[in-house]
Amino acid sequence: MTNSSHMVNFASSRGFCTTFKSDCKETFFPDDPFHKFKDEKPLHKAKKIIQYFIPLFEWLPKYNLRLLRYDLLAGITITSLAIPQGISYAKLADLPPIIGLYSSFIPPFVYAIFGSSKHLAVGTVAANSLLIAETIGNKVSPKDNPTLYLHLVFTATFFTGIFQLALGFLRLGILVDFLSHSTITGFMGGTAIIICLQQLKGIFGLKHFTTHTDVVSVLRAVFSHRNEWRWQSAVVGVVFLCFLQFTRYLRQRKPKLFWISAMSPMVVVVVGCLFAYFAHAEKHGINIVGDLKKGLNPPSIQHLNFESQYLPVTVRAGLVTGLIALAEGIAIGRSFAIIKNEQTDGNKEIIAFGFMNIIGSFTSCYLTTGPFSKTAVNFNAGCRTAMSNVIMGFCMMLTLLFLAPLFSNTPLVALSAIIMSAMLGLINYEEIIHLFKVDKFDFVICMAAFLGVSFISMDVGLMLSVGLALLRALLYVARPASCKLGKIPNSSLYRDTEQYPGSTTIEGILVLQLGSPIYFANCTYIRERTLRYVQEEQGISDSKSDVIEHVLLDLSGVSSIDMTGIETFVEIRRILDAKGIKLAIVNPRIEVLEKMTLAKFTDAIGKESFYLSIEDAVQSCLFTLNSKKTATESSNDQNVA
Amino acid sequence: MTNSSHMVNFASSRGFCTTFKSDCKETFFPDDPFHKFKDEKPLHKAKKIIQYFIPLFEWLPKYNLRLLRYDLLAGITITSLAIPQGISYAKLADLPPIIGLYSSFIPPFVYAIFGSSKHLAVGTVAANSLLIAETIGNKVSPKDNPTLYLHLVFTATFFTGIFQLALGFLRLGILVDFLSHSTITGFMGGTAIIICLQQLKGIFGLKHFTTHTDVVSVLRAVFSHRNEWRWQSAVVGVVFLCFLQFTRYLRQRKPKLFWISAMSPMVVVVVGCLFAYFAHAEKHGINIVGDLKKGLNPPSIQHLNFESQYLPVTVRAGLVTGLIALAEGIAIGRSFAIIKNEQTDGNKEIIAFGFMNIIGSFTSCYLTTGPFSKTAVNFNAGCRTAMSNVIMGFCMMLTLLFLAPLFSNTPLVALSAIIMSAMLGLINYEEIIHLFKVDKFDFVICMAAFLGVSFISMDVGLMLSVGLALLRALLYVARPASCKLGKIPNSSLYRDTEQYPGSTTIEGILVLQLGSPIYFANCTYIRERTLRYVQEEQGISDSKSDVIEHVLLDLSGVSSIDMTGIETFVEIRRILDAKGIKLAIVNPRIEVLEKMTLAKFTDAIGKESFYLSIEDAVQSCLFTLNSKKTATESSNDQNVA
Repeated sequence: MTNSSHMVNFASSRGFCTTFKSDCKETFFPDDPFHKFKDEKPLHKAKKIIQYFIPLFEWLPKYNLRLLRYDLLAGITITSLAIPQGISYAKLADLPPIIGLYSSFIPPFVYAIFGSSKHLAVGTVAANSLLIAETIGNKVSPKDNPTLYLHLVFTATFFTGIFQLALGFLRLGILVDFLSHSTITGFMGGTAIIICLQQLKGIFGLKHFTTHTDVVSVLRAVFSHRNEWRWQSAVVGVVFLCFLQFTRYLRQRKPKLFWISAMSPMVVVVVGCLFAYFAHAEKHGINIVGDLKKGLNPPSIQHLNFESQYLPVTVRAGLVTGLIALAEGIAIGRSFAIIKNEQTDGNKEIIAFGFMNIIGSFTSCYLTTGPFSKTAVNFNAGCRTAMSNVIMGFCMMLTLLFLAPLFSNTPLVALSAIIMSAMLGLINYEEIIHLFKVDKFDFVICMAAFLGVSFISMDVGLMLSVGLALLRALLYVARPASCKLGKIPNSSLYRDTEQYPGSTTIEGILVLQLGSPIYFANCTYIRERTLRYVQEEQGISDSKSDVIEHVLLDLSGVSSIDMTGIETFVEIRRILDAKGIKLAIVNPRIEVLEKMTLAKFTDAIGKESFYLSIEDAVQSCLFTLNSKKTATESSNDQNVA
Repeated sequence: MTNSSHMVNFASSRGFCTTFKSDCKETFFPDDPFHKFKDEKPLHKAKKIIQYFIPLFEWLPKYNLRLLRYDLLAGITITSLAIPQGISYAKLADLPPIIGLYSSFIPPFVYAIFGSSKHLAVGTVAANSLLIAETIGNKVSPKDNPTLYLHLVFTATFFTGIFQLALGFLRLGILVDFLSHSTITGFMGGTAIIICLQQLKGIFGLKHFTTHTDVVSVLRAVFSHRNEWRWQSAVVGVVFLCFLQFTRYLRQRKPKLFWISAMSPMVVVVVGCLFAYFAHAEKHGINIVGDLKKGLNPPSIQHLNFESQYLPVTVRAGLVTGLIALAEGIAIGRSFAIIKNEQTDGNKEIIAFGFMNIIGSFTSCYLTTGPFSKTAVNFNAGCRTAMSNVIMGFCMMLTLLFLAPLFSNTPLVALSAIIMSAMLGLINYEEIIHLFKVDKFDFVICMAAFLGVSFISMDVGLMLSVGLALLRALLYVARPASCKLGKIPNSSLYRDTEQYPGSTTIEGILVLQLGSPIYFANCTYIRERTLRYVQEEQGISDSKSDVIEHVLLDLSGVSSIDMTGIETFVEIRRILDAKGIKLAIVNPRIEVLEKMTLAKFTDAIGKESFYLSIEDAVQSCLFTLNSKKTATESSNDQNVA
């Protein structure tokens, strides 16, 4: 043995409770939410806990007039977007347009109480509206039975809320992590395409249309009813669309003019209303929204429908839309918080969304979340706190009480133009190209969602993409990368020989770095890969003196292992033993070492075969090799003598 | 900058094709099957390739009489086991007993041609027999419509073969890796319990029984028909069972007497036959097998049933039993090969099983694989090559041609005793206790299979357990362990401060080691965990001088990363920048570095922030910190002056 003064620490085996507690903490409380009020006095602690669960109490006491000025402006700006978007998306969900306005009145207040993001603006979103229409519309036709359809949508919203609340309280925000950025990019892109195509119905003023959402069915529906095309409607639509796209272009060129593009949908609605009113548009084939009643949200709690025949479809719609809404809402809240170097709490956001949708489903609202367009406008308009949502709620209340009927003249074609324009901004070409350049598998995941949504259906596309992403995650762990290490000259560093061609290997010793984690799904692979390295090495050096006598496994990077993993090491050791090769373990992490000790592997190969650094291990092996060689030589000498 | 002579190698970016090819190779060809005949001449190469795909050609030319002596003995021994087991398991699958004998005649020949294991003995297995009965029996009653039921079993076997062949040719042996050892232990244990309970029907000579397999239904069925209990049958059964268990005990005490336990089922059958014949057992309520026709397997290819109404159930039965059969057969072949320091090729084994079942389904056989009991006997009897299977096939042929009718007197209670005794050996208490001690999650996975199979149904139990194992795999990647590193005194090593309490941290510098892989499902976690480390560190040292100024991320162990992972580094850098903290990356692996370069992260933080070793990075940071301090001090001095 050489004088390796640094030894592996075998003493630190932790109990099951300790590791279990720590694992649970890392899994469900990675942000350590309670560390803030750990050392406080009881009264102070209670206050802090309430403030933690209801963020309103944290920011409201500090609220002042200066902040209100910013929030007031932002609130009014987003209201002007909320009205046209609310009506448009409600039409997309095959709901009465007034439901869209209702959905922008109650939920913002709820979010202001429970939400932790300062910039998120609450509202309905296009993708979920269409997904609801697709899922529930397949069971109950919104045309033949509009009341039942409406009640089922409320029920689905209720399930969304319950699901979100449960996820939040069970700290299962981790589920949202499994919707990858690539999936969302592809899903949004695909959804944008099919929603745009859906709008051709409005633009051309068609009366008959398909209930399918895929590209092929929609295009067939558009072109098979050419006799219904109305050129007047198309002209108006194209003009509006050009105007909206122009304001969007303006914003991109001069970010300070964002308010023009924020107001433009409202302008389109108002101009559309006036135009429809004065030009008697309906006589020229331009359909209008029609019939918007004055008054606030009626209660809808008594309409929730839990009949067993509709339960599967409402639960399914609730879960799928709920998960997508969370992914969108949390990602958006998070990305704006990052710009300002603030943090949002994922699980708290989920709880806020949950309350929002449960209370929404009781008050004639359908699914709401934090849509990108509205949040971006809110952020740009300079909002400071969730008060901007409250302002929007108030403005919406005034609208519902006094102005709603004015919007009944809105031409459908104007709404279609608004939706189309919003959707065109969601197709993120640059991101897709970027994905293609950097990571081909991410690109495939993205395209699976994009093409799946465009050509099959929204949930199939989503599942396809999530399935691929999970498959990739499993492949990651099924085939962890391992490599052969060589010594960097003039140092004690050992690095991948492929990455650092200058590094040299040591005669008779093979140093391997294993990837993480080691567990049942990759055990066979790790065993075969390790033995293949040994085989390759012995293939290169055919002369007997160069044969491998020591294999060092560097486990620095291996953070977890399971039973089968430990057994694999036992097997590897047995096979190497049979070949006369000695196995040594370098720098096992605490979790790996604990399990090796429990499984008696440590005793089997002996504690002297564990090293803290590769250099120590190599020195020790070289010492053994040399003393062996000397012994052979001296015995040869003796024979000669 | 200090004189850090060892730099990160930025030059080695590989093309997409290179990485893709290497990934594919590692995923599907981890054992590099073609390396043997890479450098051979064409003719020689062709020969080697044929030998590779049909292992028969490899061992048959070298075969000699000495080897035959061993294989002959082993072959006869396993035949004596194959006859009673074949009849018993066929009864378990609700098939005519002769099918069990047929299944031990053709498949062994097929395996001898394609199989790569020297010790595997081919035969039917209890778990799959019961699973087939459960799956297909739910659709078509084997009592009311035995012919259709039989044909559906052949069809399921055909699908099993096709599925296995496809898996083998597509090199998807990787799928089998996902059935973990813990799952199989639990599944086997649970199956053993329910099969034992099923045998109470035979032991008590019951006429009415349940089609369910769960513990509760079976016990209820046994006790609700107490009027049917036959004490004569029970006495005979208990006597046989005691005899079988005694021989098993004998084998455990004296391994050399294994042949007694191997022959004992045959003894039980012969004694049972004689007893039934001379004591006119049927009159005393002891049922016999009845009607075994002479003659070889009739063709069954014309009976394969592809009617659409039965397709779902046959395909499902085929896939599930096929996968379990593979897991069992491959694991068993592998474990015996390891004892002898030989290797089996998983994908080649899968292809052999596939051919075996396809040809089997054409010749009135049902699902066969490599059962544990038979293989162990084969191994202990000293088999040397797959020739022992050929011998068994010949013996079985002779049995079918001449002896089959003799077995028609076998009492059912003897078969029940044989099955029970075999099953009791499959409940692996020690393994389950070992799992509990070493890895609690593995124990839960095992118990999920065990309890699921016992109390719900076989496929639910299996899916539950596989689901949990996959969930664990995903949790592994969702929460990779990271840790804070400290310097081991008197060395340049940096190790986990929790594991090595003696290690010391350096003022102003935080060194973190991140777990692998980094990708979409754990990005949020990694960001929050990293920031929490920074926060905690700054919480400890409140004095201004101790504030963190450098964060070093050690990426040595990170073997893969995706787009979202790279974006996380960008975010972490932005957040740290805002706090005035500098980020440096230590020893990124080739794949990580390539993606960082492609995503322009390398340029963003500057190549000078990449270090090859932690020591280099720390030295460089200390240099910056010191020069800053000196500058502040000198300016203070100047102010004072």
